[in-house]
Amino acid sequence: MLAHRTIQAAKLLAIIVSMIALASLVSAQSKPRARDLGIPFDGTPGPLNAITDVQGIEVGYTTLISGSGALKVGEGPVRTGVTAVLPRGKNLFGDPVMAGWYSLNGNGEMSGTTWVEESGFLEGPVMITNTHSVGVVRDAVIQWRVQHGADAPGAVWWGLPVVAETYDGELNDINGFHVKPEHVFHAIDSAAGGAIAEGNVGGGTGMICHGFKGGTGSASRKLDANDSGYTVGVLAQCNYGKQEQLRIAGIPVGRELSPGIERKKDQGSIIVVVATDAPLLPHQLKRLARRVPLGLGRDGSYSGNGSGDIFIAFSTANSGAWEPKGVKQVAMLPNDEMEPLFLATVQCVEEAVINAMIAAETMTGINDFTVRAIPHKQLQEVLQKYNRLVTPK
Amino acid sequence: MLAHRTIQAAKLLAIIVSMIALASLVSAQSKPRARDLGIPFDGTPGPLNAITDVQGIEVGYTTLISGSGALKVGEGPVRTGVTAVLPRGKNLFGDPVMAGWYSLNGNGEMSGTTWVEESGFLEGPVMITNTHSVGVVRDAVIQWRVQHGADAPGAVWWGLPVVAETYDGELNDINGFHVKPEHVFHAIDSAAGGAIAEGNVGGGTGMICHGFKGGTGSASRKLDANDSGYTVGVLAQCNYGKQEQLRIAGIPVGRELSPGIERKKDQGSIIVVVATDAPLLPHQLKRLARRVPLGLGRDGSYSGNGSGDIFIAFSTANSGAWEPKGVKQVAMLPNDEMEPLFLATVQCVEEAVINAMIAAETMTGINDFTVRAIPHKQLQEVLQKYNRLVTPK
Amino acid sequence: MLAHRTIQAAKLLAIIVSMIALASLVSAQSKPRARDLGIPFDGTPGPLNAITDVQGIEVGYTTLISGSGALKVGEGPVRTGVTAVLPRGKNLFGDPVMAGWYSLNGNGEMSGTTWVEESGFLEGPVMITNTHSVGVVRDAVIQWRVQHGADAPGAVWWGLPVVAETYDGELNDINGFHVKPEHVFHAIDSAAGGAIAEGNVGGGTGMICHGFKGGTGSASRKLDANDSGYTVGVLAQCNYGKQEQLRIAGIPVGRELSPGIERKKDQGSIIVVVATDAPLLPHQLKRLARRVPLGLGRDGSYSGNGSGDIFIAFSTANSGAWEPKGVKQVAMLPNDEMEPLFLATVQCVEEAVINAMIAAETMTGINDFTVRAIPHKQLQEVLQKYNRLVTPK
Amino acid sequence: MLAHRTIQAAKLLAIIVSMIALASLVSAQSKPRARDLGIPFDGTPGPLNAITDVQGIEVGYTTLISGSGALKVGEGPVRTGVTAVLPRGKNLFGDPVMAGWYSLNGNGEMSGTTWVEESGFLEGPVMITNTHSVGVVRDAVIQWRVQHGADAPGAVWWGLPVVAETYDGELNDINGFHVKPEHVFHAIDSAAGGAIAEGNVGGGTGMICHGFKGGTGSASRKLDANDSGYTVGVLAQCNYGKQEQLRIAGIPVGRELSPGIERKKDQGSIIVVVATDAPLLPHQLKRLARRVPLGLGRDGSYSGNGSGDIFIAFSTANSGAWEPKGVKQVAMLPNDEMEPLFLATVQCVEEAVINAMIAAETMTGINDFTVRAIPHKQLQEVLQKYNRLVTPK
Repeated sequence: MLAHRTIQAAKLLAIIVSMIALASLVSAQSKPRARDLGIPFDGTPGPLNAITDVQGIEVGYTTLISGSGALKVGEGPVRTGVTAVLPRGKNLFGDPVMAGWYSLNGNGEMSGTTWVEESGFLEGPVMITNTHSVGVVRDAVIQWRVQHGADAPGAVWWGLPVVAETYDGELNDINGFHVKPEHVFHAIDSAAGGAIAEGNVGGGTGMICHGFKGGTGSASRKLDANDSGYTVGVLAQCNYGKQEQLRIAGIPVGRELSPGIERKKDQGSIIVVVATDAPLLPHQLKRLARRVPLGLGRDGSYSGNGSGDIFIAFSTANSGAWEPKGVKQVAMLPNDEMEPLFLATVQCVEEAVINAMIAAETMTGINDFTVRAIPHKQLQEVLQKYNRLVTPK
Repeated sequence: MLAHRTIQAAKLLAIIVSMIALASLVSAQSKPRARDLGIPFDGTPGPLNAITDVQGIEVGYTTLISGSGALKVGEGPVRTGVTAVLPRGKNLFGDPVMAGWYSLNGNGEMSGTTWVEESGFLEGPVMITNTHSVGVVRDAVIQWRVQHGADAPGAVWWGLPVVAETYDGELNDINGFHVKPEHVFHAIDSAAGGAIAEGNVGGGTGMICHGFKGGTGSASRKLDANDSGYTVGVLAQCNYGKQEQLRIAGIPVGRELSPGIERKKDQGSIIVVVATDAPLLPHQLKRLARRVPLGLGRDGSYSGNGSGDIFIAFSTANSGAWEPKGVKQVAMLPNDEMEPLFLATVQCVEEAVINAMIAAETMTGINDFTVRAIPHKQLQEVLQKYNRLVTPK
Repeated sequence: MLAHRTIQAAKLLAIIVSMIALASLVSAQSKPRARDLGIPFDGTPGPLNAITDVQGIEVGYTTLISGSGALKVGEGPVRTGVTAVLPRGKNLFGDPVMAGWYSLNGNGEMSGTTWVEESGFLEGPVMITNTHSVGVVRDAVIQWRVQHGADAPGAVWWGLPVVAETYDGELNDINGFHVKPEHVFHAIDSAAGGAIAEGNVGGGTGMICHGFKGGTGSASRKLDANDSGYTVGVLAQCNYGKQEQLRIAGIPVGRELSPGIERKKDQGSIIVVVATDAPLLPHQLKRLARRVPLGLGRDGSYSGNGSGDIFIAFSTANSGAWEPKGVKQVAMLPNDEMEPLFLATVQCVEEAVINAMIAAETMTGINDFTVRAIPHKQLQEVLQKYNRLVTPK
Repeated sequence: MLAHRTIQAAKLLAIIVSMIALASLVSAQSKPRARDLGIPFDGTPGPLNAITDVQGIEVGYTTLISGSGALKVGEGPVRTGVTAVLPRGKNLFGDPVMAGWYSLNGNGEMSGTTWVEESGFLEGPVMITNTHSVGVVRDAVIQWRVQHGADAPGAVWWGLPVVAETYDGELNDINGFHVKPEHVFHAIDSAAGGAIAEGNVGGGTGMICHGFKGGTGSASRKLDANDSGYTVGVLAQCNYGKQEQLRIAGIPVGRELSPGIERKKDQGSIIVVVATDAPLLPHQLKRLARRVPLGLGRDGSYSGNGSGDIFIAFSTANSGAWEPKGVKQVAMLPNDEMEPLFLATVQCVEEAVINAMIAAETMTGINDFTVRAIPHKQLQEVLQKYNRLVTPK
């Protein structure tokens, strides 16, 4: 039996890996991002305009897409996945980062935050998946640690993994619980730095955002040397909002685009991960997390009752700070010098959401329910009408 | 001596009253508001497009403007005041309203919030003044209550007034402590419903916002009967932001307007009072307060380190709920039906800030430091350039 | 395969059921509780002196005890379980209760609290298990709901189950992940009102508390009719503390009892569930949760860094309040009349912890590591020495 | 006029100074503290067993006692005062300390906490006074800074002073507003290190605690060198509780002492200041503040609805950390090594409350209302009965 299951898992992994490889290829080579379409954003991005511009961060995805047609709970269709954000790459538990979090509207889950709040540290990766798979992902992160032998058998340690989610049950057989531990391991093990895929990938696979196909998006800002030269990066899993509220570059484009999915309510959610290499203490990182709504507001969010809008911010500075014995010297940026980081966070959030929408592709899921990608050309026309289209660099 | 001081106070009051009358007149008769200039906003305002559209709310101001030229601490110039928001009019302490609050960036003061958080009630008015006069205003609210004999002498009761502030020390001799108890009494006693003055009035007298003259602004939304028909109103004391970040109707107009006050940092602050007649419980009112940043983001706020961005929301429903004896039946809107209120709050905040700026007039204060009003005509031209100017109704 | 697994599960269930039956029998018939030993507590308990004195509450356990000797990860020894607290019995999701929570020291997990905080409601049971099984329990609660067909297939709904934990890895093969979905189903399905088992049961099976065997404990207070007649009940999963700090009836007995487990640090945790039938709103229930530390302090807690001390309080009043359409009339006890509930909460917490310790029996787990039950007779002698032993009623 | 008022102020100051001198003398020379009576407490105090054992901390009082008989609002009787805790002595604003706060029951005021929470720093002294004088004390702290010329006239700075309170309106003409700016200045200017007065002094002058005379109390713990050697000190202004709940050394002595003031409700309040020289970051200091209830629970608190139980903790380590330019290296104790500080905080709180009660002397106030000191001899007899009286060292 065990052998059989292993073979199945191996097959599955092969499929996943090939999907991811393909997705990455597409992303890296041909898919335009928001700026490529001439959408204007403020601030100067890092080289990748992604969370991976923050040195050491790796991102991994497992994307699960299979089946079609009618819903058979437990069989599909499957349109879901797992995203892993690794603050210090594969050093998953050895060197926790300082962190803070904020919930704008808590109709969602981000496990592990009670300890983040108390300790000031994020001890492991940030995982994002669908709403009904938070549990399996959480325990699998612990299992990953057990299997990687970080601790002697019998040692007294415990893990409180941070796992967040947004709901994909309109496209995905969410109650079929298709996310398995091996998908979690793959997301972690395949994580890498460099350019990252956006759109229908990882936990963002089955998302809907402002009436169009949503998903995973990212952006970064590289501060001017006069403003310290730090980098801020954001990764967002975008699943919130109504079309009529969508604003891009400040223009209420949602009303002028041809109709996507109409919603009576803002059910959905958005998870935002903010990363920086600036040396911020936990209470300062919470300040970054609290700026996320200022960016979301620009895109048209009003954070509806059904939306789980939960944000976490961490800093890759202060390596070694967590080590449990002896007083540490940790670096702290004065509050008075945080301002460029606040602005950068707002700008990254604004752009990461639009990047997710621009990258996402039309998807058909349960009962042939189809969510269209935002129409790029029409969007450009609307922005042009408002003199808000720029020439891409 | 006493007689002499009384006469002085009487004189002062006369001056204040005439100033206010004048201000109200100007406001009511001729000053355009943002919509009058053709600036587009979403949603349908109430008849007054002000916080006073929420039945029973009264607003009063004491505006103190005197002296000019060089700063002599204790003598002037004086450019400050007091604003009073009375949830149930002159029934100041007899029938507290349910309330919740949120601090986006706590570089400011809103006294009394610990009890708001704990009890779920706001027991008295919301007062707003300058940063260094919070104390005198706070104690004077208690004194007002003592003088109005609400309680028998010797009765055991205590007051924990809610008093917020923003900083006006660039225009006003803030360390001269010019706000006195009588100014607090006047703001309360002169409060009224109906149209309210905006701009350089009350606590908002000496404000600076996004590089131009700031001040007090208000807006409201009347929900469609299908969405319950409730009203949301906002009053904001606006003192935050940089010119280069200012966005109006989504357009980054700040960069195209001729230069106002240049700031290296977002020192300032904004206090926002959200009021509604919807029957919301305290934890639901906190949800409204947490939506304020979504509106501020639209205007260009990134909530700088020096900004005290603190918000309180209350509901005028559930009269009698506070009465200390016996189980009460209180009305509660389901969370699932709060969504239109969230959107209305975001819309009101976006507009109230712009209303404050449009109403504010050029002011000269300490050492002839002058803060210009935002240039209306030029603003219209910029919006026209982006096809974002509409015909006022 | 499926058949084979089903049989195994059936066998396991049979074993579990018999264990529980036995445990309940022992508990109900012969095991003394703290008061039976003459330990004095303040206040008047309800008939059962348990959380089930609050009308409608049901408690269910799955207790997993198997294997012995050396640790083989994945094989055992197993000393763990699952506890289910059902606020309205088997109406698990149809009629959520108002709730609030508080984390004294967040080195632990209580999933779902972000939504409790936001919505003011607890939508389902409170589950408690070991630290590394929170995930499987969480997803299984959703699965239970799916299997019980509360919602049409394809309906848009999502669950955010509340699952808490304490660590049992010193006695239990915690990294073997022995808790399975069927154990979760059993804990829910077997839940009942009436007298409840204490000590080594459910999630509390492998606990250690103040140097002796810990576990699950409960207590209640029935308020005097003059004080409203409401009931407060507490259930605690007790796993915290050092022996030297243990205080019973105010006496530092820990230092006089023969040595149990010595700890350098207060690793452990305590989860406390507070229930009442008093009509409290969410912000008032948080006030109850915040009183838990006042009770823990009496037993000698100082809430060490490694302790996950997380508390949730709910009210069974206001049935129907959650229903999503239309304004509800909900009952609210005035803040001014909450005082007896505060005192009752403190008293229940103090007693529930001691009840857990008195009921717990000596247990041997991994590598024959043995944790002794607190010695009843010696404890009585110490209390006698301090004139603090009373005649049991 | 000015001359006249100055003379009056000078007279008043002379009276105050002599009262304080007397009080200090009495305190230092003859008044027993709790340990002197043989009441047992855990842990090892510092040399002074007071908050001033933390290097650099200074405490100052202004005690206002005048008049007797019937209440004439504005005339007296006066039984109130002001307490100043200066974290770095007279360097009041130049070198802010890291800080955190917690409200157990927010029926009270601690102004300035929004900025403490946001910035992680306490920028100035902690002041404590009566409930209706928070405002005058707050503004006077700013005035003190203005008068001491820390900043150039016209410089842009603002102050958000931390001022807490408890209610003394049963003994004191609280609505007469007898605390004036000069009393605030005196409390600050007269602050000193060394042994500090306890009982009816400063803000604690008119307090009532557990049915007896309350007031100001202090205690400290000096950790063993193996546990780092840090010091924790506590100062508490104690005004809460019912006699029947009073526990000393774990014994419910309140019920056995002859009757003091009977209360139907726990109106009152307690403010606790926790200080340490351990290098803790803001989020860690909040952890100390959250331990205060564990100590209060031991003394019999259940934190009634009317009680404002608000706590602030700060660290004198990391001098220079606040300086606004450039990245700072700050020292941080690992969370894993905080445990002895948690225990010390709990122990200090337990003892400081009892020290306040033991030091407080019988006081007669409004309408000859008299609050008796806790009877020392009778208390010793009760403790003896329970074998809980020890031989003082």
